[in-house]
Amino acid sequence: MKAIVNISLKAGVLDSQGKAVHHALDALNFSGVNDVRVGKQIVLELHDTDAKHAKEQVTQMCESLLANTVIEDYEIEIMA
Amino acid sequence: MKAIVNISLKAGVLDSQGKAVHHALDALNFSGVNDVRVGKQIVLELHDTDAKHAKEQVTQMCESLLANTVIEDYEIEIMA
Repeated sequence: MKAIVNISLKAGVLDSQGKAVHHALDALNFSGVNDVRVGKQIVLELHDTDAKHAKEQVTQMCESLLANTVIEDYEIEIMA
Repeated sequence: MKAIVNISLKAGVLDSQGKAVHHALDALNFSGVNDVRVGKQIVLELHDTDAKHAKEQVTQMCESLLANTVIEDYEIEIMA
């Protein structure tokens, strides 16, 4: 079973990496970009075969290690 | 229009960040994790209203700036 965790900065938190990418895209003449946000994607391969239990497990991992919940939001997607 | 770019290390490329996360999860007694891969997720807000054109544009951004295509793969998802 596979779990995909997408971690992004909360709205309102300054995303300096995103700003840098935005400036670099402008410098390369990619116009038409309004905003850039850079986050993390963590892919976990789990032994677990129960999707509900796996999601609980991964939620705990996010809360205790993967995400900084003060400034980051996370989304979990469980795939068979 | 929103474009989500998921950038991950190619299979076979050593993912030291993923290994570190895996060790940390083990240390926190999260058993049942086979493998961890850490990638990037870049969310772009585009002026573009044509999905096909937006995807071409973002593909060019990936090739020239966002991804290191020697060691990384990327996936683009266009959302209305």
